[in-house]
This record gives sequence, structure tokens and C-alpha cells, in this order.
Amino acid sequence: MRIGELSKRSGVAVPTIKYYLREGMLPPGERTSPNQARYDDTHLHRLRLVRALIDVGGLSVAAVRGILSTVDAPESDMEDLLKTVQKAVLPVPEPAAVDAQSSAEKEIHDLVIELGWDVSPKHFAVEALATVLVTARSLGHDRFLDFIRRYGPIMQQIGVADLDYVVGARTVDDLLEAVVVGTVLGDSVMITLRRLAQASETATRFPGGGDRQSLSD
Amino acid sequence: MRIGELSKRSGVAVPTIKYYLREGMLPPGERTSPNQARYDDTHLHRLRLVRALIDVGGLSVAAVRGILSTVDAPESDMEDLLKTVQKAVLPVPEPAAVDAQSSAEKEIHDLVIELGWDVSPKHFAVEALATVLVTARSLGHDRFLDFIRRYGPIMQQIGVADLDYVVGARTVDDLLEAVVVGTVLGDSVMITLRRLAQASETATRFPGGGDRQSLSD
Repeated sequence: MRIGELSKRSGVAVPTIKYYLREGMLPPGERTSPNQARYDDTHLHRLRLVRALIDVGGLSVAAVRGILSTVDAPESDMEDLLKTVQKAVLPVPEPAAVDAQSSAEKEIHDLVIELGWDVSPKHFAVEALATVLVTARSLGHDRFLDFIRRYGPIMQQIGVADLDYVVGARTVDDLLEAVVVGTVLGDSVMITLRRLAQASETATRFPGGGDRQSLSD
Repeated sequence: MRIGELSKRSGVAVPTIKYYLREGMLPPGERTSPNQARYDDTHLHRLRLVRALIDVGGLSVAAVRGILSTVDAPESDMEDLLKTVQKAVLPVPEPAAVDAQSSAEKEIHDLVIELGWDVSPKHFAVEALATVLVTARSLGHDRFLDFIRRYGPIMQQIGVADLDYVVGARTVDDLLEAVVVGTVLGDSVMITLRRLAQASETATRFPGGGDRQSLSD
């Protein structure tokens, strides 16, 4: 198909498609004349993937470019890809003041060991989670480490579900895309389901809507 | 304390504090002269909360202002607060094309009923999750509804843990703040723990790092 039809079928404007082509996020079409090219379903699919990561996943164009270049590099492995995708989706907050931060990182890594997880103490998510812990404590939330501990075994079930989803893919290309889509859209699934589970649990525990009077009883 | 000390202890610049005061996100200090005011620990705490929501939670100033005005309104109840906080943290993507969207919303609501959750079919997270489902399907991920279904009972445990955290608060003010902090920082906890659980599960299933050759075996 011509670029016009690619635009129509994907809902992405022609100048935006040209931009993705220049940035290498979309492979070039098959040249049919000096200024015309033909595109196929693989281009349409790639465009939809780019828009899903940006519009639904909330990623920046730069983050998407990084992920796609890892997917496209023949020498990259699952670990490379997982790390690139995970980082793109998790903007790491500015770490807290050095002392509080490094002792919190130790507490988080101890917790990871307690959970029996095979994870490096240098994993960027250990640092990010430690920053969250320090922040909660600065607000007087002393119970926050217990809150994180309670989440641990629950999130382990999510990790297992994620990997089951990934290994259910039929081809290596599908598998790599399942990592990308599962991680990025999976975060949205998790967050939206959390909202619904909270709403349901709140309705159960505070049947009257929970006005301040009833809360202080 | 004077505004200078408040700035020093909170790490927030004086002009930013003045901006928060003008916007009503921080209550006025006790006036001690026509152009001086005194602040106390409640101001320091509020400033830390604002920065936590912005820096760690990734919320916009407008979203934080909306949450705080709900927290501060004496007539607002738990349901109001939960809805305001939940929406602030979950930017709802542009819904998909009408037909696909409304049938996906029905599928998601059927799933919610299957889970036994007490949630309105009009809940904004039903719409948001339906959009994610439509997006995944447009990428050919036919198994995505099963992926969401698998997440359901796991996220129910998260909802229960969240409400346990909230009701563990000692006062009504603490409880309202626990909703805010638990929801916003809880999303970060959930996402970072998911990264760690995935990394651990990947290391277990693909011990060699998972190069493409071994993946296609």
C-alpha cells in the first residue's frame, strides 16, 4: 500500500509516519520509484505498536525508539530487552538524600532475599523502590515497609503470570513483542484493575460512602 | 518557623512555596506582621506531601491541587476522595473506536462480575481497561483478555491489602492521607515490585540470559 493508505488504516498522519521513518522506528518501504515506496502489513503493525506505546503506555518517542532498536537488533537477548523496556516504563525518581537512600536500598534488598527472588542488589527497581520508601517515611508513614512486604508475594504471582504470557508466544518475534506489550500495557492493566478492586473493597467496607462522621466512629 | 526555614527543611524553594500558598495547596501561615508569617510542622508535612505526589507519584500540579482540595473539604467522604485520587493517577487514554470500545467495556464488566466485584459498569477504570484491551487486540494479541482475567484475583489481593493499610490509620486525617499516599506511592511500589518479580522469574526460566537461538529451540 502507499503511504496515504498506511496513514488511513493506522490513523497516523503522513508527516508523523515520515518522522518515524527518518528516526528508524519504522523500516523503509519497498521503493517503487525515486519518490514512492510501498508498505505492507508489517509496517501497519509496527505503526500500531508505536501508537500503543505512546498513547496507551504513555511513553515518550525517545523511549519507544530505544525499545524498538533493541527489538530490531539481532544480537540483543531477552535480558537486554526486558531491561530496556522496564526502564522506559519506569521513570526513576531522583534518589533521596544519600544516607537514608542507601539504608533503604539495603532494606529493600533484604526484603527481596526474604521473598527468595533472584535479583541483583543493583537492579534499578531496588533503587526506585527505596526512594519511594524514604519518601513515605518522610511523611511519617512508618508502616510503609510492611505495606511493601505485604505486596511482595502478590506481585510475585504477577511476575509468574507475565512470564507465562510471554512464553505462550508462537515465534521469537512474537515473544519479543509480548515482552514489550505485556510490560507496557500490563502496567495499565494492573493499575486499572487496582482501581476497580479498591472501589469494590471500599464499597464492601464503607457501605454508606464513608463520610467523616462514620469514619471516626 | 519563617518561610526561609520552611524552605530549608522541606527542600522546596521559597518562590515555589509562595506559589503553593497562592494556589491554596498550602494553608496560610500565622501572620506576625504585615509581610511576615510563621509556619509550623503541619506546613512542613503538607509541603512534603505535595513534593511526594509530584516527584515520586509523577502527578501534575493541577492533579495535586484537586486532590488536596478534596482532602481539605469538610463535606467530602471517602468515596469522593478515592475517586479524585484514582483519577488523578490514571490518565484515561482516548477511547478506541465506538463499536470496539463498547463491546470491550461489556467484556470487562462481565469479567468484573465474574470476579464478584461490586463496581459500577460506568466506573472510569472499566473504560480505561477496555481501551487497553482494544489496543492489545489491534496488535493481534488475541490472548489479552485471558491475561487480564489471570490478573483479576491477584489484583483483588492488592485491593484488600490497600484497604487494610488505610483502615490501620489512627485518625480521620491520617486515614485520608493514607488513601492519597497509599494510592499514589502504592502504584510505584506495585510497578517496581513487578519489575523485580519479572527479572527474578526471567532469570529462573532463561538462565543463560535468553539469546534468540535458545529462545527458538
